[in-house]
Amino acid sequence: MLDLRQPADQILTACSLSAALEAIGERWSFLILRASFGGIEHFEGYQGALGIARNILASRLAHLVDHDILARHAFPGDRRKVAYRLTPKGLALLPAMVALRQWAEQWEKCVPANPALVDSRDRMPIKRMVVSAHDGRTLTAEDLSWCDLSELGRTGDACQGQAIAAYS
Amino acid sequence: MLDLRQPADQILTACSLSAALEAIGERWSFLILRASFGGIEHFEGYQGALGIARNILASRLAHLVDHDILARHAFPGDRRKVAYRLTPKGLALLPAMVALRQWAEQWEKCVPANPALVDSRDRMPIKRMVVSAHDGRTLTAEDLSWCDLSELGRTGDACQGQAIAAYS
Repeated sequence: MLDLRQPADQILTACSLSAALEAIGERWSFLILRASFGGIEHFEGYQGALGIARNILASRLAHLVDHDILARHAFPGDRRKVAYRLTPKGLALLPAMVALRQWAEQWEKCVPANPALVDSRDRMPIKRMVVSAHDGRTLTAEDLSWCDLSELGRTGDACQGQAIAAYS
Repeated sequence: MLDLRQPADQILTACSLSAALEAIGERWSFLILRASFGGIEHFEGYQGALGIARNILASRLAHLVDHDILARHAFPGDRRKVAYRLTPKGLALLPAMVALRQWAEQWEKCVPANPALVDSRDRMPIKRMVVSAHDGRTLTAEDLSWCDLSELGRTGDACQGQAIAAYS
């Protein structure tokens, strides 16, 4: 039994996951972001890579721009030169994208995906993404609990400092 | 400029992300999983927590069961007692779910979500999820490259061992 119970009426209001899904919770949006991380920038590039209908692509790109995940870099006078590039907020999705990719490698495809993601410096594969405690121990769902932020504050300065550091 | 370029025609075929999205790439599926991690097991529980239409909930639960992410635990004679519980494959989604939640905390809501996820042992907040090199260095998108698996094999036994360990 997991220790992650939360009052049911809090699930949608308190959970940031809802906010994430509002921004990117749609199959094409994920694949567009995947292409963006792969260096694709132009409308025609996305269209060719994903085989997505042009009206859907336009709508999804606009949505990602509205959410400040992609930024539109326009060149006046040449509409074909508009580039959609990941913003800092978009680049910050890397851990979530990599975690999903690794999950599918292990559980959906059951083989390492080819090509593999490696560290450019030494060409060694990246580590598996895990949830870690403040001291580096790997945590599973059974190890996690919910804690009210005000309760974190009451457990002492060190703990509060950790909480702030973890979210800053 | 990122160093994650990949031939465009490989994006959909080679990327495990597509497989992940086929399994869970839909807003309601994510929220059902979020509720599952929160300990909800019964149809009426999901329905009450998410306010989702019953036919959509039934379809999404069936899809997650088909993909071996949730397992159906039935009690003969009492249909209300059917429980949907996370399988090992479903539990393995924890890092992806936590990474998405943390991203939204920082970039969508701009405040720490309350309640916070903490380590049950010491009530300290969990670490921020990051992509790590084999030696623990934090990597950004700029630090990553693609590497063909056969190339990993050729770079020596140590590297190949790492590759296998990373995906085993």
